[in-house]
Amino acid sequence: MLSLLDLLRSIEAGETTPEAALRQAHQAIAARDDELQAFAYVDGSAQAAASGPLRGVAVGLKDIIDTADMPTQMGTPIYAGWRPRADAAIVSLLHRAGATVIGKTATTPLVYLDPTVTRNPRNPAHTPGGSSSGSAAAVGAGLIPLAVGTQTGGSVIRPASFCGVAAVKPSFRLLPTVGVKPFAWTLDTLGLFAATVADVACALAAVTGREALRIDRRTIAAPRIGVMTQDFAGEPDPDGATALEAAARAAERAGAVVRPVRPSPTLAEAFHAHGPLQNYEARQALAWEYDSHRALLGPLLRQLLDEAQTIPAEAYDDARGVAHRARLALKEETFRDVDVLLTHAAPGAAPEGLGGTGDSRFNRVWTLMGTPCVNVPGLETEGGLPVGVQIIASFGGDAQALAAAAFVEDALRRRP
Amino acid sequence: MLSLLDLLRSIEAGETTPEAALRQAHQAIAARDDELQAFAYVDGSAQAAASGPLRGVAVGLKDIIDTADMPTQMGTPIYAGWRPRADAAIVSLLHRAGATVIGKTATTPLVYLDPTVTRNPRNPAHTPGGSSSGSAAAVGAGLIPLAVGTQTGGSVIRPASFCGVAAVKPSFRLLPTVGVKPFAWTLDTLGLFAATVADVACALAAVTGREALRIDRRTIAAPRIGVMTQDFAGEPDPDGATALEAAARAAERAGAVVRPVRPSPTLAEAFHAHGPLQNYEARQALAWEYDSHRALLGPLLRQLLDEAQTIPAEAYDDARGVAHRARLALKEETFRDVDVLLTHAAPGAAPEGLGGTGDSRFNRVWTLMGTPCVNVPGLETEGGLPVGVQIIASFGGDAQALAAAAFVEDALRRRP
Repeated sequence: MLSLLDLLRSIEAGETTPEAALRQAHQAIAARDDELQAFAYVDGSAQAAASGPLRGVAVGLKDIIDTADMPTQMGTPIYAGWRPRADAAIVSLLHRAGATVIGKTATTPLVYLDPTVTRNPRNPAHTPGGSSSGSAAAVGAGLIPLAVGTQTGGSVIRPASFCGVAAVKPSFRLLPTVGVKPFAWTLDTLGLFAATVADVACALAAVTGREALRIDRRTIAAPRIGVMTQDFAGEPDPDGATALEAAARAAERAGAVVRPVRPSPTLAEAFHAHGPLQNYEARQALAWEYDSHRALLGPLLRQLLDEAQTIPAEAYDDARGVAHRARLALKEETFRDVDVLLTHAAPGAAPEGLGGTGDSRFNRVWTLMGTPCVNVPGLETEGGLPVGVQIIASFGGDAQALAAAAFVEDALRRRP
Repeated sequence: MLSLLDLLRSIEAGETTPEAALRQAHQAIAARDDELQAFAYVDGSAQAAASGPLRGVAVGLKDIIDTADMPTQMGTPIYAGWRPRADAAIVSLLHRAGATVIGKTATTPLVYLDPTVTRNPRNPAHTPGGSSSGSAAAVGAGLIPLAVGTQTGGSVIRPASFCGVAAVKPSFRLLPTVGVKPFAWTLDTLGLFAATVADVACALAAVTGREALRIDRRTIAAPRIGVMTQDFAGEPDPDGATALEAAARAAERAGAVVRPVRPSPTLAEAFHAHGPLQNYEARQALAWEYDSHRALLGPLLRQLLDEAQTIPAEAYDDARGVAHRARLALKEETFRDVDVLLTHAAPGAAPEGLGGTGDSRFNRVWTLMGTPCVNVPGLETEGGLPVGVQIIASFGGDAQALAAAAFVEDALRRRP
């Protein structure tokens, strides 16, 4: 993989140039993307910017993010050839930071569970996860140092875990979603993929102008970590259980205070509220697509929207109420004695086959809580597939989440 | 004005037909809109739907609401001729309810304070208010029975007050904003304009499928009304003060419990937090327009965005924190002993001249609070210009707000 920070350091040191970095990304895509299929569109003319902290950084944007100079096709024939007038806000923020959008990455159709064509960069017989399939795969394959995705259930953290890359799903609306195709407005959150936790932190800091998000290894304190197994979401695969245990032990050996934390009862309720809330919003957000192009929807999305038409408003209102109470409980109880939570990023390694994108059950409630979530890479199965673990902080605690995730990432590197 | 409920009753009774109602709207627009300039685009082929509770209802949509079959030009040359691929969610919901979108109504450029060309239907030398200028004016002039606008500061309630129409700005995100051009995502709220409070309530019920929102005059209880003058927002005009006093006295005579209510200190803080919060989001939401077309922005918006570029993230975070605390105080203190608040809808009647759109200072904090707000028409100045008053309920209390507003509207009609 291409570390964004290593690349910026090489540019800074004069060992490479922003122009050469862009050429390298173009060449890597040309060489490998026919097999990987991470990109839905590549801008062959994309060049390095003149200035900015991310100068020389080639970025892939999930193809539900509006671009004025490239198609935005949402993974569906409904938007074939579609060209928005304006760039999404995140695109302007990337441009201001000096990054170069090199192309649009493959998304599942309208970000739901119907799979896209992208393969897992670590094993082409396995799914890269979804819905931000291309973003995770393009970074995992080392084609580009940075990609943007979105998460409504588990569409950033899960594919990051499956592809062995770092990712951050920041606090709700820390990154602006203006110009990003909505699925469920209470949930939709932009996220960033890069090789390491420090890389995603650097990109998030550059894009938001919040310098406190950067990882400074000289000042990272050993965090108080609560290990939460999310029993309300069912059992993980053996791979996932092993990874969580390994991460907890490594963090403890590195000096972290690690102890088990039980979820509050409202968090379990909130886990079950995610579905009705998401689907009630999706039936409105995708009303035009459903009413005008139902036959062109992916079969799983069509079925979801068919069923969502009858969700009563009261079920939605109840789900919002549950989410509100669970957010308060998380803030006032769960995060009172720990800095971050450590939990599964996915049930286990990427499932075999390209007919599905895996399961978001260990991600959903955190999207609903709006808390910052980080996938920490560095562990793998005996078969060589990556298995991530997830670090979660309280709402607004993006810097803590990233610092603790970098701590765990370092601890995993130092394992005997 | 055209009462939506009267129209539906006439159709129900066979006194008119949905087709005739659409023809009437087309004719009224053709006859009067050259002078009024409420419409940015009229779909001359728009016909009545085959079914639905709002069948025969011609609707005007503020021209920042995406339509697949009409231009969406945002009041600015930056979007001249722009045609989105999809309808906004609210458009699909209107279609499902049987309403017919007859055209797009004039908006101030990108919904900020630079005025548009629309005139006040009650006096063409006065502003209709903004930014939903055309929506308020088209209903106020009796061209159409229903229009949709948006409010980020005071862009629904203020023009409704100036044009003498009823309007509801529902609880935040009760109406989906998918496909509506964002200005500040924490604030942007869709609203509806119609002749009377019962008319807007009927439309809101039909579009959301929430039947409890309809006004049933047999069951409206006399509300407990807290009169709040919003001293933190400055003094109203004498017209505005007189209107508020008249509405309070009329409600009291009709049996309401009316007493003064002082705002909590955090509400005053939240009033001042609206600006930094809105402008920090606007600089991101409109980043592409600013970076690519700064010279084409309205001068007031350009200046706002120029200044907004330097707002620090901390000021935004502080503003969000203040807003959060003020929402809690509103719920737990202010609305503990009253059902609704009665306050100014605008400082007074519509100012003379078309060079501005009036002042949103009595609306802003309520947009930030996300509470349902209703403009109650029925009062006017000695010069014959309308002056509305505003009814506000707790978040989620849209039915209470509408019922109390209908109570006050009835009370004003029965004045000696």
